[in-house]
Amino acid sequence: MVKQTIVPPTRILIINPNSDDSMTRLILESARRCASPDTRVDCVSTPEAPIFIENYLDELQCGPGMVDIGRRESGDYDAFIVACHSDVNLDVLREIVDKPVVGIGQASMHAAAMLGHRFSVIQTTDHSVPMKEDLVRRYGLWEKCASVRAVVGNSDSLLGAVAEAAQRAVGEDGAEVIVLGCAGLSGLEKEIERRVGVPVVDGVACAVVLVEGLVRCGLTTSKVRKYRPE
Amino acid sequence: MVKQTIVPPTRILIINPNSDDSMTRLILESARRCASPDTRVDCVSTPEAPIFIENYLDELQCGPGMVDIGRRESGDYDAFIVACHSDVNLDVLREIVDKPVVGIGQASMHAAAMLGHRFSVIQTTDHSVPMKEDLVRRYGLWEKCASVRAVVGNSDSLLGAVAEAAQRAVGEDGAEVIVLGCAGLSGLEKEIERRVGVPVVDGVACAVVLVEGLVRCGLTTSKVRKYRPE
Amino acid sequence: MVKQTIVPPTRILIINPNSDDSMTRLILESARRCASPDTRVDCVSTPEAPIFIENYLDELQCGPGMVDIGRRESGDYDAFIVACHSDVNLDVLREIVDKPVVGIGQASMHAAAMLGHRFSVIQTTDHSVPMKEDLVRRYGLWEKCASVRAVVGNSDSLLGAVAEAAQRAVGEDGAEVIVLGCAGLSGLEKEIERRVGVPVVDGVACAVVLVEGLVRCGLTTSKVRKYRPE
Amino acid sequence: MVKQTIVPPTRILIINPNSDDSMTRLILESARRCASPDTRVDCVSTPEAPIFIENYLDELQCGPGMVDIGRRESGDYDAFIVACHSDVNLDVLREIVDKPVVGIGQASMHAAAMLGHRFSVIQTTDHSVPMKEDLVRRYGLWEKCASVRAVVGNSDSLLGAVAEAAQRAVGEDGAEVIVLGCAGLSGLEKEIERRVGVPVVDGVACAVVLVEGLVRCGLTTSKVRKYRPE
Amino acid sequence: MVKQTIVPPTRILIINPNSDDSMTRLILESARRCASPDTRVDCVSTPEAPIFIENYLDELQCGPGMVDIGRRESGDYDAFIVACHSDVNLDVLREIVDKPVVGIGQASMHAAAMLGHRFSVIQTTDHSVPMKEDLVRRYGLWEKCASVRAVVGNSDSLLGAVAEAAQRAVGEDGAEVIVLGCAGLSGLEKEIERRVGVPVVDGVACAVVLVEGLVRCGLTTSKVRKYRPE
Amino acid sequence: MVKQTIVPPTRILIINPNSDDSMTRLILESARRCASPDTRVDCVSTPEAPIFIENYLDELQCGPGMVDIGRRESGDYDAFIVACHSDVNLDVLREIVDKPVVGIGQASMHAAAMLGHRFSVIQTTDHSVPMKEDLVRRYGLWEKCASVRAVVGNSDSLLGAVAEAAQRAVGEDGAEVIVLGCAGLSGLEKEIERRVGVPVVDGVACAVVLVEGLVRCGLTTSKVRKYRPE
Repeated sequence: MVKQTIVPPTRILIINPNSDDSMTRLILESARRCASPDTRVDCVSTPEAPIFIENYLDELQCGPGMVDIGRRESGDYDAFIVACHSDVNLDVLREIVDKPVVGIGQASMHAAAMLGHRFSVIQTTDHSVPMKEDLVRRYGLWEKCASVRAVVGNSDSLLGAVAEAAQRAVGEDGAEVIVLGCAGLSGLEKEIERRVGVPVVDGVACAVVLVEGLVRCGLTTSKVRKYRPE
Repeated sequence: MVKQTIVPPTRILIINPNSDDSMTRLILESARRCASPDTRVDCVSTPEAPIFIENYLDELQCGPGMVDIGRRESGDYDAFIVACHSDVNLDVLREIVDKPVVGIGQASMHAAAMLGHRFSVIQTTDHSVPMKEDLVRRYGLWEKCASVRAVVGNSDSLLGAVAEAAQRAVGEDGAEVIVLGCAGLSGLEKEIERRVGVPVVDGVACAVVLVEGLVRCGLTTSKVRKYRPE
Repeated sequence: MVKQTIVPPTRILIINPNSDDSMTRLILESARRCASPDTRVDCVSTPEAPIFIENYLDELQCGPGMVDIGRRESGDYDAFIVACHSDVNLDVLREIVDKPVVGIGQASMHAAAMLGHRFSVIQTTDHSVPMKEDLVRRYGLWEKCASVRAVVGNSDSLLGAVAEAAQRAVGEDGAEVIVLGCAGLSGLEKEIERRVGVPVVDGVACAVVLVEGLVRCGLTTSKVRKYRPE
Repeated sequence: MVKQTIVPPTRILIINPNSDDSMTRLILESARRCASPDTRVDCVSTPEAPIFIENYLDELQCGPGMVDIGRRESGDYDAFIVACHSDVNLDVLREIVDKPVVGIGQASMHAAAMLGHRFSVIQTTDHSVPMKEDLVRRYGLWEKCASVRAVVGNSDSLLGAVAEAAQRAVGEDGAEVIVLGCAGLSGLEKEIERRVGVPVVDGVACAVVLVEGLVRCGLTTSKVRKYRPE
Repeated sequence: MVKQTIVPPTRILIINPNSDDSMTRLILESARRCASPDTRVDCVSTPEAPIFIENYLDELQCGPGMVDIGRRESGDYDAFIVACHSDVNLDVLREIVDKPVVGIGQASMHAAAMLGHRFSVIQTTDHSVPMKEDLVRRYGLWEKCASVRAVVGNSDSLLGAVAEAAQRAVGEDGAEVIVLGCAGLSGLEKEIERRVGVPVVDGVACAVVLVEGLVRCGLTTSKVRKYRPE
Repeated sequence: MVKQTIVPPTRILIINPNSDDSMTRLILESARRCASPDTRVDCVSTPEAPIFIENYLDELQCGPGMVDIGRRESGDYDAFIVACHSDVNLDVLREIVDKPVVGIGQASMHAAAMLGHRFSVIQTTDHSVPMKEDLVRRYGLWEKCASVRAVVGNSDSLLGAVAEAAQRAVGEDGAEVIVLGCAGLSGLEKEIERRVGVPVVDGVACAVVLVEGLVRCGLTTSKVRKYRPE
């Protein structure tokens, strides 16, 4: 077996679209847990963004800060991740940045599609279910999606509520894989997997390994039409 | 920035479903080019398989050998790759193996779906176009697929023929990304990319970085229903 | 009214993909019940195949025996039927045989699509539901399918269990037609029809009359691309 | 091998929705060519219907006559066929008749779906292409349909024009099977098949063998909801 | 702000496909409630049509009378409405009339698609659910449709029964908008909206304002192919 | 015939998402041409927005100004229109405003779906074709869309270029209706209609009459889930 060539470390910047620094720390922790040893991962909060992204106005309001980060850091990183499971402003970043940009929603749902017959996405609010359904359709993954479900909230903890919704998705909707529908759930995947008995996919982890891979393959966003800046 | 923990090397076994050792060497070369330094990649030909996989009988005939490899090596590797772009016998391997198993067709088309508006797949034979169309539909990626095209063969080289078909896919079908539809094309991606001006995705490379990522995330095939052995 | 010309009898070979001779006898009995008087129907078990087909490995393992039968008997029969409702190895047989080849899954679901608004398929195991869903999609019949359901098993008999699942499909899923999802259920159709009150389609019967018809029309598999041997 | 039981002859009534008796004779001729020796086939023109069905008003105007035939003959036949490739008033007949009723459009397109990767339908007028596309979608067969094409009319004969359109469908649209899109083309199928090299499906022939089969299987239209008269 | 030019009043004829004059009056009342002051709306019953449209035979039987009305009144009106939520014989009218023709089913479902994530249609009979599902698919609006539901009939009034079915569609099927699936429900929309808390769309009202708009924009049915009379 | 009640004038505010006042005047002119006499229509440019919207960044940058307008004018108008054919920031406005909000893309494509078999959209730039395709899919209108085409630009005028692209859509793609894919084309519809011979739909006109209708019917955006502000 031949020895691998030494390559310089891959530098990944994760953009947390909201301004909650504790969320940023949580995301970074998850990211580093699964990153390759030769990868440098950083995560930044988005200045002047809302503290939590839950509707269309929030998505808009975190946009300018995200664009500033993308432009400023474009030269210093090899790849970018949008760490909100609704993949907010992902298209804008792809347009203004020359490096690969992936959303944690997209990364997790594409991975889930390869792990079983169909996946279900668990949302933390009922309000966000239609938005996630739109995203699934937009990615062309509707046929692989058993359901998008919100936590019901009878449980005394977020972990319990997500596990219960996941259990119902498996039992009632035919899901074979669970996708965590919010960056804030990152880190719960292994415990839910233990409780429910099917693979549980966290978008932060998936996006990190996916962009590492894209960088290693020398692949980036096509600039031929859709994402051509002008 | 904290230091990453040292992890033991990920061991990946690539199964070349045919019995052509020169193809096996080509695949391994491509695989190692993009694998992480801390990954050990091996590739084996399938004994008693046809020398080339081009029809349904070939797919069936390489099955027993692939199953033998999967069973025998299951304990020694962390992940498996089926290195034929038709993803032959992928479902069987997922059923008998407890580790993640990915096909190069699936890996490349899911990656392509994240790099631009729509992708086209270039096949080396016209005969295989319907089979690849079936595969695209089965993965639920039809809406992201601009076309499946065969090389026309006016060119004096395989490289030229693939580049020409890719050029037409971009110009006439609206493709923004090209997927190489055969493991035997592995290694041509950068030159075609240079000629055509859009990202060109090689399945071997994609599959390697994808399974590395799945292993790092601790994800594997759901065994709850579809891929439960009995 | 003119008299019909006398034609030589149509010879149909039903391949039971498993090695269970009692199943073979059951299939033959069903087949003959509905065959035209001028049709000769035979049914063979597949040597060295598993005793029951329930997963991907089983499908693979019955392949070589089915190919042997197809090749050996190709000259002696006018049409072939694959008598497993998952239509295992149907594509291979179409490729190697010049006569029409039909699967009982395909035959029954296409017939059901013409008998009512939507049909449901009743499986004997929960494990096989995803595989049957894949098959429905592959045949493009998803829009005509109300559901694929497994028997629940509270009933004291297979007949009772299938009838109960069929009743639920009609009442809860909007099915207007029931398809028996396993060759082993052949013969139960009329009793279930009596209990549930909607047409119940048995694949063996459907496939027999369908291939008789194809032979009479002089139609066979297109060999222009997908099923061209080389 | 056991002897088949003797069954009384199956009686099929083909309703030609228009009032053109020469078309009625042509249809009957095609039907008898492929009918089983033990089947009695009759064909009637529809009184007070237009001489040719080519638009929505024509479809409406042949309705009352078709209903009269269905009601009057319901007791004397085992199955009915609507012999216009647009399957005009098929739903009404299913509603008022207790026996199986099949349209030649439906029968031919379902059969074609089982003979190759995708089929194309050849229409005699450009005007009828959208209507046929609607029908394909309504039957859920869109994914199996390569194209609906009208004859171009440069040829000096109808046969030549259909063959030319069929040839284009195979060469340009990827069709592997051709469906004749009008009852008036019945009888041309073998000559076009000879010229184009792929199976050519005539709806009259297909419908006859299909309803023979349904009768033999004891299957008829579900009356549980959609086709319940009141 | 400039003054609008005075235009002659738009004249709309609503065709009630059945022969129930009390229904005709109800429809006219609803229509006038939402019509523009400068619009003249009339409504006619269809002579010799059934008193209520609930199956395919009824649809056929109201056809000749509708055609007579369309032809006779074509010169005197600027637009036509078919006031049955199944849009019976809409295609025929489009073919024979040069003015815009809209069905209340189509108008209400397109409007509903613009008011929320997904809509549900409430039918007065279970029997008509499959027909409405066919219509939704035909209009290409399946993805925007949460469900087609029939009233259950536990309620002591039609209003109560529709409201209850609507409530379930919102709670269980994820509907955000309700469409009244029958012209006979016209006028109940505001009370149901009050009870259920989501927009409730009445087809008569929608169709009136839609055709007013089409007339004002100078738009009418394309006569280039599908609706060309000959 | 009863007299209509006098209603206060409907007040519509059209938001031109860009900052080009000449475009704003053009839009207002088109809007008033088709508005009802009893409607008051105003149109505003968006302060600090780009002069033209052609990519994702532009969409984001016109967002804050649009939100300001929506909030400030919410009390003074009965309905809002987003006058960019990509329907930029339509979801945000629906969320923050209690009145009906419609985009000219959505309005024109839904109207076109009711005027013929399939419509084509003509874009002024090739770059915007994928974005418009995404929009068509998002509205669930893909099956009704023959093609999205960009002007080719051989013509010496915009009018000529659009007419040529429209002609090709009709001749090559089977379009029966043309949709103008940019607010800047508003006013050309009648001349293109004259040249091409099929209905040509302008989004500004369609949106005006559509929101007039929604107001008259008392319908507005559902606030039950997707568009609920918090």
